[in-house]
Amino acid sequence: MISCLVDGAVSEHVPANDRGFAYGDGVFETLAVVGGKPRLWQAHMDRLARGCECLGLPQPPQEVLWREAVTVAAGQSRCVVKLVLTRGSAGRGYAPPESASTLRVVSAHAWPEGIERARELGAHAVTCELRLALQPALRGIKHLNRLEQVLAARELAVHPGKQGILRNTEGYVVGAVDANLFAVTGGQLLTPRLDRCGVHGVLRELLLRDHMARCERRRMTPALLIEADELFLCSAVRGIVPLLSLDDRAWDPGPVTRELQDWHQELLERP
Amino acid sequence: MISCLVDGAVSEHVPANDRGFAYGDGVFETLAVVGGKPRLWQAHMDRLARGCECLGLPQPPQEVLWREAVTVAAGQSRCVVKLVLTRGSAGRGYAPPESASTLRVVSAHAWPEGIERARELGAHAVTCELRLALQPALRGIKHLNRLEQVLAARELAVHPGKQGILRNTEGYVVGAVDANLFAVTGGQLLTPRLDRCGVHGVLRELLLRDHMARCERRRMTPALLIEADELFLCSAVRGIVPLLSLDDRAWDPGPVTRELQDWHQELLERP
Repeated sequence: MISCLVDGAVSEHVPANDRGFAYGDGVFETLAVVGGKPRLWQAHMDRLARGCECLGLPQPPQEVLWREAVTVAAGQSRCVVKLVLTRGSAGRGYAPPESASTLRVVSAHAWPEGIERARELGAHAVTCELRLALQPALRGIKHLNRLEQVLAARELAVHPGKQGILRNTEGYVVGAVDANLFAVTGGQLLTPRLDRCGVHGVLRELLLRDHMARCERRRMTPALLIEADELFLCSAVRGIVPLLSLDDRAWDPGPVTRELQDWHQELLERP
Repeated sequence: MISCLVDGAVSEHVPANDRGFAYGDGVFETLAVVGGKPRLWQAHMDRLARGCECLGLPQPPQEVLWREAVTVAAGQSRCVVKLVLTRGSAGRGYAPPESASTLRVVSAHAWPEGIERARELGAHAVTCELRLALQPALRGIKHLNRLEQVLAARELAVHPGKQGILRNTEGYVVGAVDANLFAVTGGQLLTPRLDRCGVHGVLRELLLRDHMARCERRRMTPALLIEADELFLCSAVRGIVPLLSLDDRAWDPGPVTRELQDWHQELLERP
């Protein structure tokens, strides 16, 4: 952690009775900050607002979050900034007290190694055993209950450097452990429907918006992935990453993935 | 919060980069401590051990936890002690780092009001809209991902003082928001099977052990509750609480519930 603000003050600690710590009662965002400017800011704020609405969490003004994100990133040519909002401190018990006020934790972290290399050369993936539970009440939001992702990431310890592809408890594909997933089939872009689990990734949402005519959200079986012409992951921080393999099936980075990498580059350069 | 130890030192703060705060990557226990002595200690420790094993979390020695529980409860004739274990501090990313070491937070809280009254007079309940997701990989353990319970407790804000009964996404009954549930039908004790969601409550486990011959774990439909002769909740802190009503159906506290309250009293007095 490079630096951290807790409710606007320099600190590396949060109250032990915070409901984020007690119950995971909050939401978060992870942003790329390059040249002092948070990337895809409005899309991150839109998802944060949906998460706060879902949990009934009062949201701090976006200009406060912007200022704090820029402050923790100061002096870094590029870094990752994490914003965490929780329901704040309270006594025991699941019921949110009326008096609770949202806690903000804004922290800067080192730029992850190998991002550019993975975009250029691609990544390998395996299918995880862990299945995501179906919980429509929390669909799409980036909340702090992430034990499923932790358990899936633990499986990957024996596959160093590989990504993990997750299915739900019904067997349908949801995405990667920490990224969304697209398949290219006959020129069409297919991505799992995330109406019962999974996170509505910021870059996924923008890709769906800008390429609506050739995109389809679908219940996707594992067989559909294996039969695809191309597969790629997408995430706000890591961008668009071609998948070179999934379990025993291999691909070369394909033309549609490369085209969308150009779109992503152009997206980041929009004023 | 009356007092708090973080890794054995007096503190009311935890690191902002703790994985409990970031992902809910940990487990907890809530114990009654009466006359300076933690109640049902070994049963709590057994569940904690199962939770740590499930998450791959190194567990601190039980004598350390006992000592800290007694320390925070010092001077209280009775209080509730909460033990939280998390995977400790780490950088970003779901994969648990090898270097992480378990964080312990042991805190004492005021004895909840109305416990004895509820045991004697009973409680009222409504069925919650929120459904619990089916996640066998986390079954039974008391982990820190509790947003479902938070959302369910939010529903109860319009039913002040009432308990909430939860179903899973398939419609079967799981229990109450923060307690287990038993139905008495023709002298038999029925309780929901918790193989896909729900917490293996400490008192539920002991009740099943001591009354095995007349207990059955079952997929329970809401209709089965309505048709029961008696319903009661059980929790380590609150004991055995007769249900006086569930939605539109009403009961008087029944003889089997009263008998089990005597059993519970005797259980607490065992050396």
